[in-house]
Amino acid sequence: MKKVLYKFILAVVLAGSVQGAYAADPKPEEEIRYRQSVFNVIGRNFNALGAIAKGERPYDQAFAVKTANLVELLAPLPFGSFGPGTDKGALHRSDAKIWTDQAKYKEATDKFLAEVSKLSTSAKDLNSLKAQVGEIGKTCKGCHDDFRLKEAR
Amino acid sequence: MKKVLYKFILAVVLAGSVQGAYAADPKPEEEIRYRQSVFNVIGRNFNALGAIAKGERPYDQAFAVKTANLVELLAPLPFGSFGPGTDKGALHRSDAKIWTDQAKYKEATDKFLAEVSKLSTSAKDLNSLKAQVGEIGKTCKGCHDDFRLKEAR
Repeated sequence: MKKVLYKFILAVVLAGSVQGAYAADPKPEEEIRYRQSVFNVIGRNFNALGAIAKGERPYDQAFAVKTANLVELLAPLPFGSFGPGTDKGALHRSDAKIWTDQAKYKEATDKFLAEVSKLSTSAKDLNSLKAQVGEIGKTCKGCHDDFRLKEAR
Repeated sequence: MKKVLYKFILAVVLAGSVQGAYAADPKPEEEIRYRQSVFNVIGRNFNALGAIAKGERPYDQAFAVKTANLVELLAPLPFGSFGPGTDKGALHRSDAKIWTDQAKYKEATDKFLAEVSKLSTSAKDLNSLKAQVGEIGKTCKGCHDDFRLKEAR
C-alpha cells in the first residue's frame, strides 16, 4: 500500500513538473494551436463558399453541400479551446475580453453558430447559399471586430 | 513553444519577402499552414475515436458518427496543399521525398483515404469502430514513418 501511494505521489509530482504554470490536460499551447487550426480550416472552406456567392467560382451543389457540412461540423470546435489558462501559452490574436467578458463572447459566438447551423441546408440552392453566406459573414465580422486583435500577443 | 512559434512567424515573414520565387496564389506558407491545420484537426478528432476504441472514453454513437464524418471530410484536404513550391516557405515536418517520390507518397495517402472512407459507417457500431480505427491508424503510421520528419526543417 505504501508503495502504491509512493508511486501515485511520484506520478503526481512528475506530472506537475512538466505541467508548468498551466493545467496539464490539455496544454494551453495545444489548445491555442487547435483553435487556430480549426479557424484556419473554417476560413479557407467558408471562403470557397464565399467565392461561389460572389460569382468568382462556379456553383456546384455537391461541392457546396459537402463544404457546408464541413464548416458546420467545425464551427463549434474552437470554442471548446478557450478554457481558463488558454489566454497565454503561445502567440495568438484572441482579445483578453474573451476571458474577462465571457457572457458577451458567448453571445457573439452563439450568433455565429446559429447562422452556421443553416449553412448545409442553404447550400442546396445558389440563392439561399448567397444569402446565408452573407448572414454568417456578418457574425464572423462582429466577433472579429470585438474579440480579435490586429497583432498577435 | 514560443520560440518555435517565433521562428515559424519569422519564416512566414521572410517567405513573404522572397515570395517572388514561388507561385503567388496560393502562397506556400499558407499552404503549409493549411495542411498543418487540417492534420492537427484530424489528429485531435481521430484521437477522440481512438480513446473510444481503447475504452478510455465511453462509446456514444451520435458523437462517434459525427466525429467520423468530420474526419472523413477533412481527410483529403491536406493533400491538395503539397503542390510544387510548398516544400519551402515555413517550418514543417514534410520529408523532401513527398516531392521527389510523388508516386510512393500518393500510394501511401491513397491507403489512408481508402480506410478513412469507411470510418463513418463503422462508427455506428463499437466493434466495427475499434477495427476501423486500427486499420486507419496503420495507414497513419505508415505514412508518418516514411514521410514525416522527426524535426521541423
